[in-house]
Amino acid sequence: MREGDTTTDIKASGRIQVRYKRLLALTSYLFTHPHTQWSLTELSAALHVAKSTLSEDLLFIKGILEETGQGTVVTHVGAQGGVMFVPALDRVRASETLAAWTARLTEPDRLTADGFLYMTDLLFEPRMIEPMGELLAFPFRQQKVDVVATVETKGIPLAMACAKALGTDVVLIRRDSRLSEGSAVSINYLSGSSRRIQSMSLARRALGRESRVLFVDDFMKAGGTARAAADLLGEFGAQVVGAGVLVATREPTHKLIGKFWSLLEWDETLSTVVPSVWAKDLCAERKGDTDDRH
Amino acid sequence: MREGDTTTDIKASGRIQVRYKRLLALTSYLFTHPHTQWSLTELSAALHVAKSTLSEDLLFIKGILEETGQGTVVTHVGAQGGVMFVPALDRVRASETLAAWTARLTEPDRLTADGFLYMTDLLFEPRMIEPMGELLAFPFRQQKVDVVATVETKGIPLAMACAKALGTDVVLIRRDSRLSEGSAVSINYLSGSSRRIQSMSLARRALGRESRVLFVDDFMKAGGTARAAADLLGEFGAQVVGAGVLVATREPTHKLIGKFWSLLEWDETLSTVVPSVWAKDLCAERKGDTDDRH
Repeated sequence: MREGDTTTDIKASGRIQVRYKRLLALTSYLFTHPHTQWSLTELSAALHVAKSTLSEDLLFIKGILEETGQGTVVTHVGAQGGVMFVPALDRVRASETLAAWTARLTEPDRLTADGFLYMTDLLFEPRMIEPMGELLAFPFRQQKVDVVATVETKGIPLAMACAKALGTDVVLIRRDSRLSEGSAVSINYLSGSSRRIQSMSLARRALGRESRVLFVDDFMKAGGTARAAADLLGEFGAQVVGAGVLVATREPTHKLIGKFWSLLEWDETLSTVVPSVWAKDLCAERKGDTDDRH
Repeated sequence: MREGDTTTDIKASGRIQVRYKRLLALTSYLFTHPHTQWSLTELSAALHVAKSTLSEDLLFIKGILEETGQGTVVTHVGAQGGVMFVPALDRVRASETLAAWTARLTEPDRLTADGFLYMTDLLFEPRMIEPMGELLAFPFRQQKVDVVATVETKGIPLAMACAKALGTDVVLIRRDSRLSEGSAVSINYLSGSSRRIQSMSLARRALGRESRVLFVDDFMKAGGTARAAADLLGEFGAQVVGAGVLVATREPTHKLIGKFWSLLEWDETLSTVVPSVWAKDLCAERKGDTDDRH
């Protein structure tokens, strides 16, 4: 075996073949169950592998995942303990998708006759939106976000992708209160861009007290929607730890909400869409930067 | 080395370690890029691996994925050719999630004072909705679906998950036409359950002619929404190849749309929610059944 090439190695040893198979099965299992905490007992039952073998395999995979910048396996000790796969930000995919967004949003027919930037189609393409949700989630990884909130409708896929990357759920703020959701808290507000009275509403049962909330939407101009959402969430005793959008207009530079994170910036005057500085910087960082770990 | 245990095998051979690493990196790459066709040239550039090595690795991984029922690697030959990872339906996860839905939807406080089944929270939990999208996509895997359509709002996460499993995108039907989406086709219809006039609208630019469309929604009672959506999609020359919902009411048994697929059935009289027969059967099938392959 020492003299053989890798193929011969594999063919030569059934034992190694078995271990490859176990490692690949475990790897794919981790990738399909990110941010899920498992006790070794549960994992060993699900994969039909002895616990001792599993610990060893997990350590081995953790090393490779970290070395290749794909994430890590976090171990929590104690009665509530277990292991959890935390995927790293896929910077290459995020960077390529960011470039695809700028290219597609600057296609000449993207502007409607009324001067709106048409992007509904792109917001509903899984491959275009998921890497953007992961990117938007990144600054909030250490913020102990309990839940992502969005106002219907177009920000929903981004909010879902963002929540998935944070291992949380989405709370949906409606434009009208719905009979099907029971009693709700509603607020009216003056939309910054359209200067019209708008309303939004959240079912009482939708959000627990004292939640730490990340607000996500597809688009921000004056920031009136984000401001109103923060006010509405405040009625539930929630703390808005941040606001993130896919596209923000360059003007007005002063938004009605303080700090916000946008992945792309649209300059209406110049008709350009460019990645924001932080998003670009984040994509450009080297793999395995320490802030990418839990 | 022949006498060592697997740990010794690994420690003993740097060459094997390198191959493990390459295989795990490739496996995780495939899992994060499902339904994406790559030429070997692209893949070899992305992973910094020689093409010949890559072909061999792909064949090896394909074997393990198929054997463990996790999916397959499809190879298309010719100029437009390449390789693509097609994940199999994760029946264990689908089955567990289906059970979680029935348990959570029969919690006593799920019924609102007005007799609606509250499920908005669950529809927006990534872990609850993604396996359901995969399950709902399954019957349509061979149907050459071009696009998944849904009517805003609550069916969006299910539609996105379903589209992802089919490797397609979602087209969003609005309740009102939006200035920001340009000209649109709208229809009015009589809602089967509420007996009110409702409308829905689709931007002209949102859907190409002659598309094969799968309609997805969270809930179906009389089927009026699905019927209206089919009519609206018909205005675009689209063919609706199927309709799928998360929950359908048992009554009326005759819906306004012919054939439909629901994952769960809600009996309003008995206040029970149970998995549909086809969904249960699908989860119970053995791993690696041939219809699970492309």
